[in-house]
Amino acid sequence: MTQCAITVLNGPNLNMLGTREPEVYGTLSLADIESALQQMASDNDVALTFYQSNSEGQLVDWIQETARSEKPAGLIINPGAYSHTSVAIRDALAAVKVPFVEVHLSNIYAREKFRHHSFISPLASGVLCGFGSDGYKMAFDSLVKGLTAPK
Amino acid sequence: MTQCAITVLNGPNLNMLGTREPEVYGTLSLADIESALQQMASDNDVALTFYQSNSEGQLVDWIQETARSEKPAGLIINPGAYSHTSVAIRDALAAVKVPFVEVHLSNIYAREKFRHHSFISPLASGVLCGFGSDGYKMAFDSLVKGLTAPK
Amino acid sequence: MTQCAITVLNGPNLNMLGTREPEVYGTLSLADIESALQQMASDNDVALTFYQSNSEGQLVDWIQETARSEKPAGLIINPGAYSHTSVAIRDALAAVKVPFVEVHLSNIYAREKFRHHSFISPLASGVLCGFGSDGYKMAFDSLVKGLTAPK
Amino acid sequence: MTQCAITVLNGPNLNMLGTREPEVYGTLSLADIESALQQMASDNDVALTFYQSNSEGQLVDWIQETARSEKPAGLIINPGAYSHTSVAIRDALAAVKVPFVEVHLSNIYAREKFRHHSFISPLASGVLCGFGSDGYKMAFDSLVKGLTAPK
Amino acid sequence: MTQCAITVLNGPNLNMLGTREPEVYGTLSLADIESALQQMASDNDVALTFYQSNSEGQLVDWIQETARSEKPAGLIINPGAYSHTSVAIRDALAAVKVPFVEVHLSNIYAREKFRHHSFISPLASGVLCGFGSDGYKMAFDSLVKGLTAPK
Amino acid sequence: MTQCAITVLNGPNLNMLGTREPEVYGTLSLADIESALQQMASDNDVALTFYQSNSEGQLVDWIQETARSEKPAGLIINPGAYSHTSVAIRDALAAVKVPFVEVHLSNIYAREKFRHHSFISPLASGVLCGFGSDGYKMAFDSLVKGLTAPK
Amino acid sequence: MTQCAITVLNGPNLNMLGTREPEVYGTLSLADIESALQQMASDNDVALTFYQSNSEGQLVDWIQETARSEKPAGLIINPGAYSHTSVAIRDALAAVKVPFVEVHLSNIYAREKFRHHSFISPLASGVLCGFGSDGYKMAFDSLVKGLTAPK
Amino acid sequence: MTQCAITVLNGPNLNMLGTREPEVYGTLSLADIESALQQMASDNDVALTFYQSNSEGQLVDWIQETARSEKPAGLIINPGAYSHTSVAIRDALAAVKVPFVEVHLSNIYAREKFRHHSFISPLASGVLCGFGSDGYKMAFDSLVKGLTAPK
Amino acid sequence: MTQCAITVLNGPNLNMLGTREPEVYGTLSLADIESALQQMASDNDVALTFYQSNSEGQLVDWIQETARSEKPAGLIINPGAYSHTSVAIRDALAAVKVPFVEVHLSNIYAREKFRHHSFISPLASGVLCGFGSDGYKMAFDSLVKGLTAPK
Amino acid sequence: MTQCAITVLNGPNLNMLGTREPEVYGTLSLADIESALQQMASDNDVALTFYQSNSEGQLVDWIQETARSEKPAGLIINPGAYSHTSVAIRDALAAVKVPFVEVHLSNIYAREKFRHHSFISPLASGVLCGFGSDGYKMAFDSLVKGLTAPK
Amino acid sequence: MTQCAITVLNGPNLNMLGTREPEVYGTLSLADIESALQQMASDNDVALTFYQSNSEGQLVDWIQETARSEKPAGLIINPGAYSHTSVAIRDALAAVKVPFVEVHLSNIYAREKFRHHSFISPLASGVLCGFGSDGYKMAFDSLVKGLTAPK
Amino acid sequence: MTQCAITVLNGPNLNMLGTREPEVYGTLSLADIESALQQMASDNDVALTFYQSNSEGQLVDWIQETARSEKPAGLIINPGAYSHTSVAIRDALAAVKVPFVEVHLSNIYAREKFRHHSFISPLASGVLCGFGSDGYKMAFDSLVKGLTAPK
Repeated sequence: MTQCAITVLNGPNLNMLGTREPEVYGTLSLADIESALQQMASDNDVALTFYQSNSEGQLVDWIQETARSEKPAGLIINPGAYSHTSVAIRDALAAVKVPFVEVHLSNIYAREKFRHHSFISPLASGVLCGFGSDGYKMAFDSLVKGLTAPK
Repeated sequence: MTQCAITVLNGPNLNMLGTREPEVYGTLSLADIESALQQMASDNDVALTFYQSNSEGQLVDWIQETARSEKPAGLIINPGAYSHTSVAIRDALAAVKVPFVEVHLSNIYAREKFRHHSFISPLASGVLCGFGSDGYKMAFDSLVKGLTAPK
Repeated sequence: MTQCAITVLNGPNLNMLGTREPEVYGTLSLADIESALQQMASDNDVALTFYQSNSEGQLVDWIQETARSEKPAGLIINPGAYSHTSVAIRDALAAVKVPFVEVHLSNIYAREKFRHHSFISPLASGVLCGFGSDGYKMAFDSLVKGLTAPK
Repeated sequence: MTQCAITVLNGPNLNMLGTREPEVYGTLSLADIESALQQMASDNDVALTFYQSNSEGQLVDWIQETARSEKPAGLIINPGAYSHTSVAIRDALAAVKVPFVEVHLSNIYAREKFRHHSFISPLASGVLCGFGSDGYKMAFDSLVKGLTAPK
Repeated sequence: MTQCAITVLNGPNLNMLGTREPEVYGTLSLADIESALQQMASDNDVALTFYQSNSEGQLVDWIQETARSEKPAGLIINPGAYSHTSVAIRDALAAVKVPFVEVHLSNIYAREKFRHHSFISPLASGVLCGFGSDGYKMAFDSLVKGLTAPK
Repeated sequence: MTQCAITVLNGPNLNMLGTREPEVYGTLSLADIESALQQMASDNDVALTFYQSNSEGQLVDWIQETARSEKPAGLIINPGAYSHTSVAIRDALAAVKVPFVEVHLSNIYAREKFRHHSFISPLASGVLCGFGSDGYKMAFDSLVKGLTAPK
Repeated sequence: MTQCAITVLNGPNLNMLGTREPEVYGTLSLADIESALQQMASDNDVALTFYQSNSEGQLVDWIQETARSEKPAGLIINPGAYSHTSVAIRDALAAVKVPFVEVHLSNIYAREKFRHHSFISPLASGVLCGFGSDGYKMAFDSLVKGLTAPK
Repeated sequence: MTQCAITVLNGPNLNMLGTREPEVYGTLSLADIESALQQMASDNDVALTFYQSNSEGQLVDWIQETARSEKPAGLIINPGAYSHTSVAIRDALAAVKVPFVEVHLSNIYAREKFRHHSFISPLASGVLCGFGSDGYKMAFDSLVKGLTAPK
Repeated sequence: MTQCAITVLNGPNLNMLGTREPEVYGTLSLADIESALQQMASDNDVALTFYQSNSEGQLVDWIQETARSEKPAGLIINPGAYSHTSVAIRDALAAVKVPFVEVHLSNIYAREKFRHHSFISPLASGVLCGFGSDGYKMAFDSLVKGLTAPK
Repeated sequence: MTQCAITVLNGPNLNMLGTREPEVYGTLSLADIESALQQMASDNDVALTFYQSNSEGQLVDWIQETARSEKPAGLIINPGAYSHTSVAIRDALAAVKVPFVEVHLSNIYAREKFRHHSFISPLASGVLCGFGSDGYKMAFDSLVKGLTAPK
Repeated sequence: MTQCAITVLNGPNLNMLGTREPEVYGTLSLADIESALQQMASDNDVALTFYQSNSEGQLVDWIQETARSEKPAGLIINPGAYSHTSVAIRDALAAVKVPFVEVHLSNIYAREKFRHHSFISPLASGVLCGFGSDGYKMAFDSLVKGLTAPK
Repeated sequence: MTQCAITVLNGPNLNMLGTREPEVYGTLSLADIESALQQMASDNDVALTFYQSNSEGQLVDWIQETARSEKPAGLIINPGAYSHTSVAIRDALAAVKVPFVEVHLSNIYAREKFRHHSFISPLASGVLCGFGSDGYKMAFDSLVKGLTAPK
């Protein structure tokens, strides 16, 4: 029986992964990442939901959805461009009070200045960037460990 | 017969009201607020439309809708997080030229600095914050009074 | 018997009301506003004190005075120009710990940039602007409701 | 046979064109502009797609769509308010690597300061503003010339 | 018979003139300046009122007083330190709509940076600084010429 | 008979065109551009004057010259580096009140930050950049259309 | 016979000491502080004047008064909120050229950012904060030592 | 015999005076101003030189020229747009060490923000703005008085 | 035989771990972390060097040391306070060109603003924060994977 | 028997005291100050340790040392130049939780702007500057009083 | 036979050298500097051109001239005040691609803040300031060495 | 006999010279530079001391050492990364009052923005950058000339 529920949220343009600027974002597609995570989830008895949307409002909807989980819930979020512009996503994360890890494929600090600030980070339990698709796995491991730890 | 039409627009995460950070936002749900306003509307012969969305684009659509009203129309808007980031909503309000009141449940000036600026406020006929759900009622009274005043 | 005591404080130049830039501030005089509020006070068994001064120090004195009230006390303050420059008034309000509502006749966000920041707002229980002299009445209703509510 | 494919994207509130602040934006409707461009497209054997949305996410979707074109593709985008706030649209344009022209009906430099910065412009092959609906035609001519030029 | 009424307002510390930092402000006392101006006033049939106060509120009171003049009225104001900090004085000058000249004894642009901005200047009909006590006379001449010019 | 008079003003270093950084500015020389425009002018019965100077003052002189035209006059200006530093050119354009289009060969928003601000743009009837030497032609067409349109 | 004269100036809201936010400002009243200082003054043959006002202008008046002392004079000033907003007090201190120590009860650097800047400090012979009411005594000792030292 | 030599320097676009934006700059031409000043000069035995140029370099040349005067020399400068952008003119004025008055026809503090800063002002013996063409006369009187005063 | 060499660098105050603010940094000591990493290193045939210093210069020395490794080398660095102030450490990392991961125990984005900027991050192959001592392990795994991957 | 232990830390260049810029820092050497403090310590049964270093890391080491004191410990720190640049020293002070007073010999607010901000001050129990070497004694008295006060 | 051609460009007010503020700029005249450099040029078989102008446009013209040299060409430029304000000179230097050294007589970093930024420096092969007229010689030596070095 | 003593100080990471980013810093090692300078020193009867350290405190120590020289002393300092962050080094240089030249191998103005500001430069007698290792020689020549010049 699954012990906990993890939602993976992918923000705008992550559906282009593998084709979009591969020198920056790598050659794996988002489907590849989902497969790998589903395998990990099944190995760890975790119910995994994997979403992508280009719409800020849709992402807010999905974040709110996690508050209705009956099992201990956690979130992995790669907010993409909305990291830098969305107070709405920040507020949703604050409202649901679900622990979450913020993941960026590339090292956002090595890019344009407007990518150095994230509205999301101050609320995250952990932030990681620059590890490519491995970042999702590292986030998954960390979340599962936290959600299933005896309190 | 209704004398005027008032649309109440609620921005992102306001559907979480009552459950989301009640120490900040109070314990009333958005449905409770809608009921109270519908009662006031019926007492005042006002046609009231009450909306909530997490999507910036949807909110823009609804604002544009008010421009097609045949009766004197007014708007009450609690733009939530979009207050601070949405030029699109500002432009929609400028385009429809319908009088509107901006409402915030909490005192946004007592919170993080990025909440102190609203793109919407400069266009509002009135702004109020910190009155909790009463703010909607105060806005309603004020709008009705203005819309039904002899010119 | 009066249930609570409300002080209404008016900052600099509000004694010019009715003659000063009527297109911005309306045609009612401050005496008109005082009359209307005294009527409301008498209808609600509230002891109302109504002051105006052009002096920052005088306003601080009057704010301190509210701390000596024996009844539940509240403040309505239209700090005028001192909203933007007075830390002394802010400190006085913090010191007396009396609940207060900040009122501005005009929409300060639609005016010069230096009027967009108020030292007072972060301490207010509510802030409202743009409602003309009705703002005082809305503030009065809100304060009375709070002061007379069962705790 | 069409030689190339051009998508015209219109951002928020452009569906109000003709009715919205005509002194700023002119009296032509968006349908009028579409007609004129379709005529030009047919004269030039260009497959023209013409879109408008108030939703940032929808605009991102449509930009991504251009990457799947089998003919040389180009974009004309009037991002409206999203020019100033959307990193997501910028990222989509960077991802698809389709040449595009950014068009603004009004002279954005003669308006509020927050309209002077566009996240989109640094990636554009050309930017033009202030030419009203003629801007679309100028952009169309320029794009067709570039897309059909011998390399 | 006096043709017009001119009020000369001196802000904080100008009563120290002659003793205070004479290398910056000269050796004439404020009484010397008043005498010279009264002589000019009598030569020109002008009713001259000459005030000094260290209190911002008092200066606001005196500015308001000019609005009650029955003759064409004008103001010469050396706001001293309040130039840089007082929105209240600015608002009073805006309210009375009396033409005024802003005078500074020293060249404020050659001093600390916080003295380079004056809240008052944007409303003045003329500003002059660096002419020592002659500045008052130049302001007087200019105001009289304006007030008595045929319209 | 020429219907209108158009002056084309080229700012500093544009005389280096064709040799200066061709990867940024293209390989056409300024003489090539002048020829093409003279051809267009002759086709449209326009009196075209074509100038280049490295001197800010000379450019101001030539702008003032347009105010003495007896025919409807227009300006195309590529202010080059002076876009970012010259208030004098801005003031000249404001003074002559002749409609003008601002042209930049390269996309200035894709270059150093100090090139993103132009003192000239807020006064232009249209601005375009990134179209290389075609930008002049687009500006020419637009100006002629405006100058010869029935009022 | 008193050897020197020391004036202690207390700015706005310091009359609330002991009742106002005691966790920040301590439980001693201003009268308690005055008593302790008068005792020290009498022990040291110092003529001590102790003032408090909420009015910026009154504080300026008292500062000017020190310039008329016939004995070596010194000032202890706790400008309270006016530290951060008053150029008038700064100018008065510069004018009288009396040595002074600036005292703050609380550590202003551990509070809101607008309290980190004092217009007064650059002119002080010494500044101290965070020592509670002991700060006055430390300032007193230091001033007396300086005023009575052989030159 | 002339007692002193005064040079009047007029910066860019001042040759348009009278025709350029008369609602801002008045209807007198620069020649009118020159005549009036020459009359005053002849009345005061002053050798007056009156220049205008649109070129920053030319203005620098003329400023340097004053250093070669054999009589006590003074300058009246209306630097126009170069006030805000020219360090070269500032340096020339610093180099010649001739006393000068800076004159602006309009009140530059009531205009765009970039006109509020002048590189020239910190070096001026006096600055005046907003007095229209009278400003030149006021500056002339002040300079003559200073240059002919016994030292 | 060890396949690669990893140096773990700990900046100032990390030797206080376990005793220093345990609610922020956890209860594990730095020795506990070293033990755990040495175990992982031995399991993975990695030569691990583990350092801590409060001295910026010492940290620079140790970073330079990694450039002399004969095996593929990598760095894990928790620069502590020097993240925010040390260009010297940044330059050392740039000079040695060894891949490195930056680790912070706490979520630096949820703390004071001056902790939001790291001079080190732009050069890191990955950055992670908020995972407590697990962050070191995650960094270790990631580095080993990269260093031993076939090129 | 000593009742408490006080460490006095002196930052960079304080070993130059007496020779370095005596007009700013006075003529006493650091050894003179140490002697005076040791005398006070012996009079008060305080164990005094007196250190100076030019090295940020060494200062951090010594701060950490105070956490190992078995008696009530306090710190007097004159961080010199590191006040303005060292987050490491700030973090060390936060980690050891020992009460400390920050001392500056000169009035840092009367010097260059970069000296107006101290990373250390927000954590200090008291801050004093401008009292020369007496500042150490004032700090000593204050600390002893606090450390030996009955809790 | 001359091996290479070096142009020395002197910006505004450098013709005043020797008379202008000698305590800042020294007592040598520009002619003295030219003589010394011509001697060095003749000793090194270098064709030296030495220019000074107060006009930005003239300086741009001369920079362009160097691009037409048939020998290896280099530039020494002391842009004076134009360092801080001229994008046109920067662009000219970028266009001609001739190696150049930027020279300032005084230490510009020890002067007003607006002199700390130079538009020219980022393109220079070397920058030196504070060496007085020796700076020209140092620049000359360095340029000759570079221009005549075997490639 | 040596006439004067020159200390050459090299900051962090300069010991990597020749291996560290040779495309930026050249291929000479620091030992090569030292040899060349020692040769020059011996040719000029100068006692040369040549140091490098990665430690800010060590550099401060060495600067202080120069104050104890019995011969006329000078400093050449390449502060490397500490240019941008060290107030301690600045203060040491101010304290010893030894003339010094600041040298940077690369053109710091052509690099990241945080390298454009140096705390050291305002105190230097000369600053030079971009001349590679020749910069040291130019600085040496300049210093020797100054130190041995007759006063």
